[in-house]
Formats: sequence, structure tokens, C-alpha cells
Amino acid sequence: MRPVYLDNNATTRVDPEVVQAMLPFFTDQFGNPSSAHAYGASVGAAMKKARRQLQVLIGAQFDDEITFTSGGTESDNAAILSALEVTPDRTEIVTSAVEHPAVLTLCGHLEQVRRIKIHRIPVDRRGRLDLDAYKAVLSPRVAIVSIMWANNETGMIFPVTMLAELAKEVGALFHTDAVQAVGKVPIDLKSTAIDMLSLSGHKLHGPKGVGALWIRRGVQFHSLIKGGHQQYGRRAGTENTPGIVGLGMAAELALKFLDDTATRVKSLRDRLEDGILQRIPNTSVTGDRMERLPNTANISFENTESDGIPHLLGRVGIACSSGSACTSGSMEPSHVLSAMKTPHGAVRFSLARDNSEADVDRVLEVMPTIVGKLRGSPSPGPRERSREDVRSGPCLSGSRTGCNS
Amino acid sequence: MRPVYLDNNATTRVDPEVVQAMLPFFTDQFGNPSSAHAYGASVGAAMKKARRQLQVLIGAQFDDEITFTSGGTESDNAAILSALEVTPDRTEIVTSAVEHPAVLTLCGHLEQVRRIKIHRIPVDRRGRLDLDAYKAVLSPRVAIVSIMWANNETGMIFPVTMLAELAKEVGALFHTDAVQAVGKVPIDLKSTAIDMLSLSGHKLHGPKGVGALWIRRGVQFHSLIKGGHQQYGRRAGTENTPGIVGLGMAAELALKFLDDTATRVKSLRDRLEDGILQRIPNTSVTGDRMERLPNTANISFENTESDGIPHLLGRVGIACSSGSACTSGSMEPSHVLSAMKTPHGAVRFSLARDNSEADVDRVLEVMPTIVGKLRGSPSPGPRERSREDVRSGPCLSGSRTGCNS
Ligand SMILES: Cc1ncc(COP(=O)(O)O)c(C=O)c1O
Ligand SMILES: Cc1ncc(COP(=O)(O)O)c(C=O)c1O
Repeated sequence: MRPVYLDNNATTRVDPEVVQAMLPFFTDQFGNPSSAHAYGASVGAAMKKARRQLQVLIGAQFDDEITFTSGGTESDNAAILSALEVTPDRTEIVTSAVEHPAVLTLCGHLEQVRRIKIHRIPVDRRGRLDLDAYKAVLSPRVAIVSIMWANNETGMIFPVTMLAELAKEVGALFHTDAVQAVGKVPIDLKSTAIDMLSLSGHKLHGPKGVGALWIRRGVQFHSLIKGGHQQYGRRAGTENTPGIVGLGMAAELALKFLDDTATRVKSLRDRLEDGILQRIPNTSVTGDRMERLPNTANISFENTESDGIPHLLGRVGIACSSGSACTSGSMEPSHVLSAMKTPHGAVRFSLARDNSEADVDRVLEVMPTIVGKLRGSPSPGPRERSREDVRSGPCLSGSRTGCNS
Repeated sequence: MRPVYLDNNATTRVDPEVVQAMLPFFTDQFGNPSSAHAYGASVGAAMKKARRQLQVLIGAQFDDEITFTSGGTESDNAAILSALEVTPDRTEIVTSAVEHPAVLTLCGHLEQVRRIKIHRIPVDRRGRLDLDAYKAVLSPRVAIVSIMWANNETGMIFPVTMLAELAKEVGALFHTDAVQAVGKVPIDLKSTAIDMLSLSGHKLHGPKGVGALWIRRGVQFHSLIKGGHQQYGRRAGTENTPGIVGLGMAAELALKFLDDTATRVKSLRDRLEDGILQRIPNTSVTGDRMERLPNTANISFENTESDGIPHLLGRVGIACSSGSACTSGSMEPSHVLSAMKTPHGAVRFSLARDNSEADVDRVLEVMPTIVGKLRGSPSPGPRERSREDVRSGPCLSGSRTGCNS
């Protein structure tokens, strides 16, 4: 049984070309970029190339606007904390109710410990941001707005370009968590009013443990991690040169495949959604097919336990994830779906360029039986999943970390 | 001309066995450890193995005391900032004058921005910590003591076990930056009073961009990077699984080679030091051969420009580093050598298990001519290095980041 991986919003397979690009930097060009001898110089040039590759993908004006980090979470934390440091007289943050925990957990902490006022803009049932609520909270007290480019669970895309212009009117910085957007949709930062953007290597067929924070030239920035003067003083610590080179190559490849993602991958996703909606009654696409990522399908199955479908799909070798934040065994719906007042039983399928029609057809083949089982209709096959299966042990599927990554 | 790499305290070549161990985690076992499906489970087991490998190397009592980070700098920052958060009523930090910038820059920032009182314990000419000064500043106002296990520039070893016991008497946490010690000297944490220890993969033939913070069970800890619940809530962000697996393998190999480091590598270092001291007048070993790492030689050459020797060695393919923090073109002696009141002209040679006698002999062969040149005695060979060579441009050798890593 060939495994089918449809959980690319959680993480992606590293492209073999990316691994090839990284390899020399482990054992051959292994120098510390800070070293002044030849071992250092050659890796310095490679980091420069990686900055350029990323620059092109996100349409940045200058390559030195890119600071490499350890991933999306660090980038998000660094952006928000810097804004509070550089404008200490501004004590409010605007964000959305559906951000990743990398933003929301930090904001919750700042609210509790540092008495920062956090505005979490709600979304409607279709996942659209409440624009009136957004405009209402913008004021000169806002240090930073942090609103994601695209949501990891539903794929919904926010109008960040417009939101950034509104933020600018009150002098607030605008940061966007574009971890799920970069490499999936075209991005041209130089034509926007966005100040900072987070991205993460492992969401675009690059390595885990490396990401970047794009900081527009002229935007004041204080580093989160303090130490040596690496990366123009914006991020201390010996640079992860193989990871950075890998991220650069991943960016180059993502750009090359951007059309493929917008067309072929999107039509695979649509085929999956249409197929499920046709075959299985009482299902719907979360977010009602609003503007969203081309690779993500979030489908609600009425009358199914939130984690039942991913669990049974897992048994037949199909990886996807549930819409529940099943930390510590509880079966709470995710904060994203709760904010959208979506019923339980949502499943996220997230595709990538290494998926094929056969992957989609395999899901469509097994899905009716699985859903039938969970809905209690008699059907042949392995024993029905019991409530114990769902409740016992830690988390059976979905995510162990309180987020669908 | 075979290149000779003697800058292993800056960074090391990744062991090919480490690369082999990492490779499957890029393209095969590429799952997100937080995912509940099979792709996630297998990498979870690999991370557990890596924790165990590290546990053995540092003599930790439990493998869950290990939190993976992006490197030594993040570990240092996380340890110190956590201590301030968990004991908000304690507002002082004790450290040494010769710590890495990962500690000193952060402390300087805390002093300026958060009015934390920082005690920087001085060292004597031999590099030994002023114990009376240390004891004098310990009080119930101290949140954390952060003193390195071994110094990156001189290799000198501090009596951290004893220092930790003294810190415990006043209820302060004790953290040690052991980035240069782990893998070079035996460490058995469970028999000490140390609370937290930082280490970094790329200093022990592991990958860059991954490190760890060991936190003794029972020590309260608040994560620096906030987001998902990864790593028991101690470090948010999708784990760098290839890097973590690589660090684990690097730890296993370091343990295997610990005897080799203590004997063969040490005797190579001694051969280098003795050879230079015999062949070249007016040279001395920094720290006067006190207790120090087996791989590090820091040698002062009277009447030479600080960066002259590494620069000329670089031209003949030998990589080492200078004792100057030559940021922005200035030729200040490093803060470590200044604290020891050592004259200019220090050179750091740092060896590793992949060095051979031939490497050392090559240095001994070229050294007399190079020093002769710099001291102005007439000798054949390429033109003497002019003052312009030294002063112009950014930094010719040593380090570009204000620290010898
Ligand atoms: C929208 C979003 N933001 C941030 C992150 C965090 O990125 P990382 O896991 O690289 O820290 C993720 C994924 O985990 C994400 O989907
Ligand atoms: C003693 C010491 N501490 C901390 C660090 C920082 O480690 P990293 O470069 O992995 O951030 C280094 C090396 O750079 C070091 O030598």
C-alpha cells in the first residue's frame, strides 16, 4: 500500500535538490561565516546567494532585508517583540482570532505578564476578517499589527496588502505571518506597505529549523536573540549555513513551481473537494471556497468525531490532519474553527507539488466507507472505531502541539 | 598545498557519520513530530534517541531534561531570561568578564533596558576567576549565575562544580555555557549542583543551527520562544529533526572519541605549543598552562600585530584565529584577553580529532618566517604585510562578529 501524504501544511518533504545543495556545507564548506579566513568567506557568499533566492520569491527590494532565523515561530516572536521594544510608548497589538499559536501564545503572554492590550479581530463563518472591528481598534496606541497572510488550517487568505495600508495610517508596524503563503501564492513585498514578514523553510520543501524574517529597509529592529554581531546585528548565533543554503534553494524551486501549484495542484485539490462533496452527503468546504491557498482543503463532515477520519485514513496509509486541538487528550475543536463557528468533524487535506491524481483518487476510494463507519451505518471492513479509541491515550491524530502547524 | 584547519573552536567539520544519520530525515522520515499519523511518530522516536545520546555524553539523570534549541546563543539567552521570569523578585545576575557575547551582550542589554544589576567577575592574568569577588556578590538578590565551563579563546576551564555549590547556598540558579566543553572534557551533570547547561552542535562535529539547553528536572523554566506545545512547552516551533538526530549522533561520537581528545589531540596541541615556544623567542602560552581544554592553544607573540599571524597563515592555507575583536575594522584586543591583561598579538589554534601531526608540523615549519616578517627582521618571501593591509577593508582574519565564537 503506497503511502499518501496529504499533510503538507504541517510539513513538507525536503526536495532532493535542496538536500544536494546543502550537503557540501556540512563536511566541505563547513567554515563559520564569521571567520575571516577562507573557510568563512566561501560560506558568506553562499548565504548571500540564499538571501537573493528568497528576495526574488517574496519580491523584496533588497537582499539585506532578509534575516535568517530558526523557523516561523522564532520569526513571529522576533517581529512582535521588536515592535514593542522600538516603540515603547505604544502598548497595544492587533492580531486576529485565527493566528497560529506562534503569534497567539506570545500575545497571551504579553497580555498577562506585560499588560499589553491585545485586540483579536474576529472572523465570520466564512473565515473573513471583520474589517469594521479592525478599523475600530487601529489607533496611535498600536505598536504592531500581526495578521497572517494565509491560515494554516483553512487556507483562507487575508487581504494583508490593504490591512497594512490601514495600519500605516496610524503609524503602526505591520507584520504578516506568511509561513503558509510563501511558495504557494505570488508575493511582491516591495509593492506593499507591509513592514515585516515571517516564513519557514519546512513548509516549502526546505529543511526544518530554518526560516526567515523579512524586515523592510528603514524599519527599526531589535534582535530577539542577543550575542555576536551576526546578520547585521539582527540575529545572534552562528548561522545555520546548510539550512540557509537549503532554504535558498527551496525558494528558487518554489518560484519555479509556482505555476504548477496555481494550476495542477489546485485542480487536484478541487478534484478532492468535489469528489468528497459528491460522494458523501452532509459535507461542506470550510470557508465556503473563499479566497484561499490552492493546496488546502478543509472539509466538515457532519456527525463524525473530529479525529475519526484522520485516524481511519492513517490506518490505510493516508496522512492528513484533523481540525481539533487535541492536546492532553481533549477533543476541543481548534481555535480557528471555533472562531468560524464551524461544526465538529473537520479534516484538513493539504497538497503539494509531489502529489498526484492517484493520491487524490485513493482518498476518494476509501472515504465513503470510512465516513459511513463513523456515522454508524453498517458497512464491511475493520471494526468500528470505538469512543475509547478516540478518548484514550494522548492524541490519535491531528496534532500533538495544540495547532495544526 | 593541503589546507590545515586549526580553528575548531570557531566551528568543526560535520562528521560524515553525522550527515549519514541526518539524511533520512530530510526526504524520507520527514514528518512533523507533532503530527499524530505515522509520519510524525517515527521522528518522535528519533528525537527520543537523540536526547538519550546527549544524556549519556553530559551525564544527565533524565533524557527529558534536554530541550533542543537553535544553538548555543539561543540556549544561553533562554536560560538567563527564564531565570529572571521565574524569580521576578531577584534582580541581579552574576557572570564573568570573559563570557561569550551570547551571555555578555544579553546581560548588557538587561542592565540597560531592564535595570538588572550585572556582576562581571574579573579574572587574573592567568585567567583564573577571582573567587573572593565571586563569593562577595552572591546574595539572595541573585536570580542566576552564568559562568562558562570553558572559555572559547583561551580554553581555560572554570571550577563550575564548586561555583554552582556556592550559588546554591544563596538560592540562585546556576547556568553554565558549556558550548566549548561538551565533547572535549568529561561531564557528569547528575553529580553536580548545576541547574542549566548550554551546548551547541557545530562545536562537536555536529550540524550548525542546533543546540540544546539541559534543564535539571524540578527547575522551573519559561520558554524564550513562545507558540505551540513542542518539547514539553519549553521551546515552541517545529523541531529541526535532521539537526536533532545529527546532534545526537555527534554526541555519541564525541563520547567515543573522548579518550582520543584527552590524549592524542592534547599531545598534538602540546607539540604545537612547545614547538612554537622553542622556535620563536618572546612567545608565551596565554593562561600559563592552567587547567584548560585539551585542544586549545592561545599563544602570545610579542611585537606582532594582533591579526598579522592568522592573516599570513591564511595565505599558506592554515586557518586559525586571532585574539582580536576586529569588528568594523578596529583592532581592539578581545574582551577575554583584555580581562587577562594579556599583550597584543595572541593567536588561537584550536584542534580536533580530525587533525594530525602533519598539520602541526606544517604550522611549525612556516611559523618562524612569518613571525620574523612581522617583527620586521629581514627574511625572504612575499612582501611584508603593510599597515594598510591590516587597517584597510573590513576584517582580515580573526572574527567578523566581535567574538572568536
Ligand atoms: C501559519 C503558521 N505560522 C507559524 C508556524 C510556525 O512555523 P515553525 O514550525 O517553522 O516554527 C506555522 C507552522 O508550524 C504556521 O502554519
Ligand atoms: C563559549 C561559547 N558560547 C556560546 C557560543 C554560541 O554558540 P552558537 O554559535 O551555536 O550560537 C559559542 C560559539 O559561537 C561559544 O564559543
